Amino acid sequence: MTTLHLAIDRSSGVPLYRQIYDGLRRAILERRLHPGQRVPSTRALAAELGVSRLPVLEAYEQLLHEAYLDGRAGSGTYVGASLPDDLLVAPGRAPPRPRPAPRPVDHGGMRPFRTSMPALDQFPRLMWARLVARHAHAMSPSEMGYGDPAGEVTLRLAIAEHLRAARAVRCETDQILIASGSQAGLRLAAAALLAPGDRVALEEPGYPGARAALAAHGARLVPVPVDDEGLRVDKLRARGRARVRAVHVTPSHQYPLGTSMTAARRLGLLEWAARHEGWILEDDYDSEYRYVSRPIGSLQGMDAHDRVIYLGTFSKVLFPALRIGYLVVPLALMPRFIEARRALDLCSPTLYQLVLAELVRGGQFARHLRRMRGVYQRRRDALLTGLARHCAGRLEVHNADAGLHVAAFLPDHIGESGVIAGLTARGLTALGLSPCYAGKALRPGLLLGFGGSTERRLLDATRVLGEVLRAEEG
Amino acid sequence: MTTLHLAIDRSSGVPLYRQIYDGLRRAILERRLHPGQRVPSTRALAAELGVSRLPVLEAYEQLLHEAYLDGRAGSGTYVGASLPDDLLVAPGRAPPRPRPAPRPVDHGGMRPFRTSMPALDQFPRLMWARLVARHAHAMSPSEMGYGDPAGEVTLRLAIAEHLRAARAVRCETDQILIASGSQAGLRLAAAALLAPGDRVALEEPGYPGARAALAAHGARLVPVPVDDEGLRVDKLRARGRARVRAVHVTPSHQYPLGTSMTAARRLGLLEWAARHEGWILEDDYDSEYRYVSRPIGSLQGMDAHDRVIYLGTFSKVLFPALRIGYLVVPLALMPRFIEARRALDLCSPTLYQLVLAELVRGGQFARHLRRMRGVYQRRRDALLTGLARHCAGRLEVHNADAGLHVAAFLPDHIGESGVIAGLTARGLTALGLSPCYAGKALRPGLLLGFGGSTERRLLDATRVLGEVLRAEEG
Repeated sequence: MTTLHLAIDRSSGVPLYRQIYDGLRRAILERRLHPGQRVPSTRALAAELGVSRLPVLEAYEQLLHEAYLDGRAGSGTYVGASLPDDLLVAPGRAPPRPRPAPRPVDHGGMRPFRTSMPALDQFPRLMWARLVARHAHAMSPSEMGYGDPAGEVTLRLAIAEHLRAARAVRCETDQILIASGSQAGLRLAAAALLAPGDRVALEEPGYPGARAALAAHGARLVPVPVDDEGLRVDKLRARGRARVRAVHVTPSHQYPLGTSMTAARRLGLLEWAARHEGWILEDDYDSEYRYVSRPIGSLQGMDAHDRVIYLGTFSKVLFPALRIGYLVVPLALMPRFIEARRALDLCSPTLYQLVLAELVRGGQFARHLRRMRGVYQRRRDALLTGLARHCAGRLEVHNADAGLHVAAFLPDHIGESGVIAGLTARGLTALGLSPCYAGKALRPGLLLGFGGSTERRLLDATRVLGEVLRAEEG
Repeated sequence: MTTLHLAIDRSSGVPLYRQIYDGLRRAILERRLHPGQRVPSTRALAAELGVSRLPVLEAYEQLLHEAYLDGRAGSGTYVGASLPDDLLVAPGRAPPRPRPAPRPVDHGGMRPFRTSMPALDQFPRLMWARLVARHAHAMSPSEMGYGDPAGEVTLRLAIAEHLRAARAVRCETDQILIASGSQAGLRLAAAALLAPGDRVALEEPGYPGARAALAAHGARLVPVPVDDEGLRVDKLRARGRARVRAVHVTPSHQYPLGTSMTAARRLGLLEWAARHEGWILEDDYDSEYRYVSRPIGSLQGMDAHDRVIYLGTFSKVLFPALRIGYLVVPLALMPRFIEARRALDLCSPTLYQLVLAELVRGGQFARHLRRMRGVYQRRRDALLTGLARHCAGRLEVHNADAGLHVAAFLPDHIGESGVIAGLTARGLTALGLSPCYAGKALRPGLLLGFGGSTERRLLDATRVLGEVLRAEEG
């Protein structure tokens, strides 16, 4: 048994169990501890470190749960013999082992500037595939039947815990409803709360997908402008009698402009909802990634009157083909939502729900999020560097504080559609701001996604964008 | 300036900046701090709390960003003045509620007489799990992005081949649309073809799920009776001016009665659709299993005027938790269906689509179907034997030619709800015929599923059913 040389720093603000966990995990990943090797007992390690046994127990429990360690009753604790290979790669250390040959890759979804696209190249695919394989083998007949329309309870529990901790959402497991993505979640909310012909307010500019979902339900759409503080709640109030039943907002990271709604506007919106018995559909997309300050708590967490329906999805934090999103629904409304679910698509596939539940509860999900924040920060910085270098004077970055895209305005003498056509011709892609407006766009511009591309490709792409802008300027 | 009484707990695991942020935010929301009131400097608060200045700075920065605080250069930091005073309602502090324990596995789905349930005990789980594992490991980044809203092309190709061969459906790959089950498929058809308020005819009695889906879309439902030849097309014609836009039918195996629609009725229905430009929604559920004659070709295959939308699902031939169904759509309508798909749920999970494509194209799917026909034939025979032995005179089997359930009528002196309550009390389950009627049920009866239970359990269950019937008669 080796001495571990764990460095504990009591003044760091990092909890002790976390420091111990990190130290052991690093020792395993860096192969200073080998699979099958025995590790000190919790009692011995606590004595060695001069700490109480509790944080050591906590750290071991987590490592056992994650299979870094393997406990054998009566015979001590060992480094896990079956560690997933891709975990055995310390950052900047051992090269990854070759993986099964992938099928020919279509990079359409991975093109620079593509929006709403996570870093699929950075996804821990092997870990994921192993979890999927394990759960596929363990499926019981009852798990192959029709699932609970609200979703698998283990996943709902995991999501509730996660949202309370990470997004300041006030919720219990019973309020979580799994949906087949956030688009389907929005349809469920519309079906549960709105009659065809009801008026729904949407941000202008706003998310075209929300417009499509609500229009498909038969809602009458009421565009309400946004400014630098978020939705103009005064405009909503000013509608007076023409009653708006619900409002769709993206308070954490306004789509497309990126603004986060100020506290005053949040309180104003909640007050409007309470007074008019309106519903707030809070789409908290991309809230996990902020680069200039801490993530902002949800609007739902400030709501004292059960007027908020909170929508989230795993599409951007894991991968889109998963098709799992969720809603947080005021408890009294759950029966209406369940009924809507039965009429829409009954339930979501069970396998992925079970896999996700394990991923979230086991902590891999939170770690993945943390790691991706760094990845996206670097990609965003590369994009901004490239834009400053190649597009200065021809593109004005409006907001790059958060999320997976940057909103930028074009000057009056450069046309949005021409730029997009030029980018497409050069093998790139971008969304214009215009389609985000229900009415006439106030200013032309671009949404430049950076989530799905490497720093190098983004830098190259900004050079091409600069050329396209100059050509359009003609 | 007040003392804030922020409670800092170093052992809680919550980062210090977060505790400080939460404490200040709560003090503002609960009006312990008022708009315009000065708050301590970061230096003073750090000293008061006995922490370093860094977490205090982070907390302030966040609160400034969210406009809870307002910084004035050179003159300190204040509670945001723009917060409307009357909106500062603190949400009552939510005490952490006890978590619900995950439920024990519910074997309700496997109870004898449960309808719409395949023989999950006979499913080749290991083969399936291996396919899933292989495809999960081989997923490329582009397969993890948003999928084609029409579905993965390999699966669409496989389904088109299968339907042409097995169901006499006339279709090309381009006409296949993957949906998240047949319920979602029906919603897609409604969204693509019907405006809210349009009239849709349904079989009476008919499938309650179809009623729910179409009602949720806002359709006006028109029940049309069925007899021993299927839908009474004459009744549909007789409606004359009160225009019916679409009709939902189950021609292979009428739900719930089991009849298959005669050729004359089929031709009559197609003629009605061509003349009135109506749509036929052909739900071909359970068509794979017939016990008394060859499977009957689809209605779609007889249609020369592109009036039929064909709906199928893998729920009953593989397993329900898969959530994959499909539509065959006249080519000219595909753009409308794709648009509806985008507004509903974008696409289906990719992994299962790839697995299914391999299963269908590799021939395992057809072999599974053949094998299951034998399994279901034996289960049906066991059920009929048991019913003849234990329920003769108290239950009249109406149709047991096909599918996974038997429809049976009760005599007038035995009440449907009493029998169902009696079965439930004995750990069994059954559907009544009454809920299949939009109006008043013509005859009470039961739907007895046999797909999900073994022959022995079915025989035992018929004995219990006989006892329940005798008790209800008493």
